[in-house]
Amino acid sequence: MAEFELIEILKRRCKPSRADVRLGIGDDAAVVAVAAEHELVICTDTLVAGVHFPLDTDPADIGWKALAVNLSDLAAMGAQPVWALLALTLPSADADFITRFADGFADLAAQYQIDLIGGDTTSGPLTITVTAHGLVPTGQALRRDAARVGDVVFVTGTLGDAAAGLRCLQSNDADRPPIDVACAMLISRLNRPQPRVAAGLALRGLANACIDVSDGLLADLGHIAEASGAGIEIGEDCLPGSTALFERFDADACHALQMTGGDDYELAFTIAESNIEAMQAAMTRAACRVSRIGRVIAEAGVHVLDRNGERKQVHGKGWEHFA
Amino acid sequence: MAEFELIEILKRRCKPSRADVRLGIGDDAAVVAVAAEHELVICTDTLVAGVHFPLDTDPADIGWKALAVNLSDLAAMGAQPVWALLALTLPSADADFITRFADGFADLAAQYQIDLIGGDTTSGPLTITVTAHGLVPTGQALRRDAARVGDVVFVTGTLGDAAAGLRCLQSNDADRPPIDVACAMLISRLNRPQPRVAAGLALRGLANACIDVSDGLLADLGHIAEASGAGIEIGEDCLPGSTALFERFDADACHALQMTGGDDYELAFTIAESNIEAMQAAMTRAACRVSRIGRVIAEAGVHVLDRNGERKQVHGKGWEHFA
Repeated sequence: MAEFELIEILKRRCKPSRADVRLGIGDDAAVVAVAAEHELVICTDTLVAGVHFPLDTDPADIGWKALAVNLSDLAAMGAQPVWALLALTLPSADADFITRFADGFADLAAQYQIDLIGGDTTSGPLTITVTAHGLVPTGQALRRDAARVGDVVFVTGTLGDAAAGLRCLQSNDADRPPIDVACAMLISRLNRPQPRVAAGLALRGLANACIDVSDGLLADLGHIAEASGAGIEIGEDCLPGSTALFERFDADACHALQMTGGDDYELAFTIAESNIEAMQAAMTRAACRVSRIGRVIAEAGVHVLDRNGERKQVHGKGWEHFA
Repeated sequence: MAEFELIEILKRRCKPSRADVRLGIGDDAAVVAVAAEHELVICTDTLVAGVHFPLDTDPADIGWKALAVNLSDLAAMGAQPVWALLALTLPSADADFITRFADGFADLAAQYQIDLIGGDTTSGPLTITVTAHGLVPTGQALRRDAARVGDVVFVTGTLGDAAAGLRCLQSNDADRPPIDVACAMLISRLNRPQPRVAAGLALRGLANACIDVSDGLLADLGHIAEASGAGIEIGEDCLPGSTALFERFDADACHALQMTGGDDYELAFTIAESNIEAMQAAMTRAACRVSRIGRVIAEAGVHVLDRNGERKQVHGKGWEHFA
C-alpha cells in the first residue's frame, strides 16, 4: 500500500467538521483561523511502541491514546481542543493497522469535534507524534506556576488505575482469559484514558495552578511546586482510588500506584479556599469527581503525610525517561 | 542524563525572542497569540534515522534539516514562520548528540526568528518530528490547487543537488577524504537545505499554485496538476542545475536527479504570464534565482519534453514511502 492510501484511510475516518479550518489535509500545510480574543494553546506528545504502550496493544487503543495524551495537556491548560496533526512512523504500510488506528483516533476526535488537519506518514519503527491545538480566552490559560501558599490541592477522578492496569497486563493472570472485571477496568484506563477536557474548561477562572497527572502524582505536583516557588503537602489516605484498584492490590501497593503510577491523565490543581464551592458546583455539572488531597505550603518539595499526619518517605517519584 | 537536562540544553540554545509567545517551554502546553487579520499555517514532518538521513549524519545537520523541511512547507504556503515544537525520540540521553543537534536547529531558528515553544523527549529509535507554525494575511496562503491552464511553471534555485549529494556519500569516493569541492557542495545541499522562505513570501499575490520540491520535481508537479484538475508540461533542458551537479554527473544522470531526486526544498509554482515581470523583480529583491521550466496544460499528468520538443518517458517519479 502506498503512502497516499494510508492518508486516504485516515481522511475517510476523520471527517472535517470545523468552519475555522480553511485548508485541511492535502497541501503542504494546513490553514486555520483563530477566534478573536483567544489565545492558541499548543502541545505535542510522542508515543513509542514498547515504551509508552506494550507491543501487542490494539492499534485502535494506540490511536485513541496518542490523541488522548495531547488532549490531556490541553485540558490542563483549560483549553478547548480544536485541531490535531498526526505524524505516524510505521514499519510497514499495514492497512489493517492503519484502519484500526484511525478508528481509535477518530472516535476520540469526534467526541470533541477536533479536526485532523495534517500530518506526515513515514516508514520506520512505530512512533506516533500528535500535535494538538486548543483555544482559551486571552489570558485565561491555567498554568503550573500560579499556585499560592494556602491553596488547597485537588485531583479529578481516581489515581493509579492505569499503572495497575499495566501490572495486570504484565502479570501471568492477564494471559489467561477471561481477565476479571477489575483487571479489565484497570487495563481500559491504561489503554483508553479519558482526557479531562470538560473539567479543565470548568476550572478556568477558579483554579490557580493546574497540571495533568502523566508522570505520576508526586512528580507532577513537584512540577507545580517548583514552577510556583512553593511546596505541596498531601495526605496519603486522601488519594482517590477506584474500587477495582482496591480490590486487586493491597493498601501499600495502592498507595504506591496512586502516588507514582503515572499515565492517569487526571488533573491536579490548586485553588483558593474561597473558590472551592464554585469549583465543586462546576465539577458536578461537568460530571467530574474531585478529591481534596492536600495543601500548598511555603516549604519546597512535595511531602506525603501518613494517616497519623506524620511525614513519610516515598521512594521513586514517577516516570523518568532515560533513567 | 535525565530528560529535563536534555530540555535544558535545548532551551539554553534556543532562546525565546518573540512577544507573541505568552508561555513557552515548561508547562503542559505553550500559549501564543495570533496576529489579527492573519491565518495560521501549520505543518508537521518527521525525519527517521536511516530513512531520511544516513545514520552517520552530523547531529547538527539533523537538527537543521528537521526544522528546514518544515519551514520549506511553510514557504510553499507563502507563510512567515513563527513557532516550532520539537518531538525528539532518542536511543539514549546523549549530551553530545543533543548539544550538536540543538546547535543546528537553533542556527536555522535564529535565522528566521522562530521560537521553539514546546516539545517532547522520549526514549526510542532516533526519530524527529517538528511541527512548525507560520502566519499569512487572511486568504493569501498559496495552495496546490490553484494552477490555471496557461500558467507558466517556474522553479527556484537548482534541482537535483541533494540527491546527487546522497550519491556522493554512497559512492566509495566519499570515504576517501578530501571530498572534492563539487561533492562537498552537493552534500551540503543534502544536509543543510535552505528553505525558500523569502521566495514564498515574495510569491504571495503573484503566484497561483505553489509546492515545495521534496518528493522530486515530477511527483510534486503531479500534486499541483492533480489538485488543480490540470496537467503540466516541462522541458527537460529548462531544468536549472548547479555547476557542481553538471561537473559530477553526465547529462542523463543530471536529468534523472533533477526530475526525480527529491529533497531539494526549492519551490515550484505556476503563475499567470501577466504577473511574471513583477514576480521576477520580487525574486531579484529576495536574491532568489528562478527558472521558467514549463506550462500548465489542460491534459492531465506531468509530461516531459526533450530538446526537440518531443514527449519523453521518464521512469520513477520520486520518493515514495512504503514503495
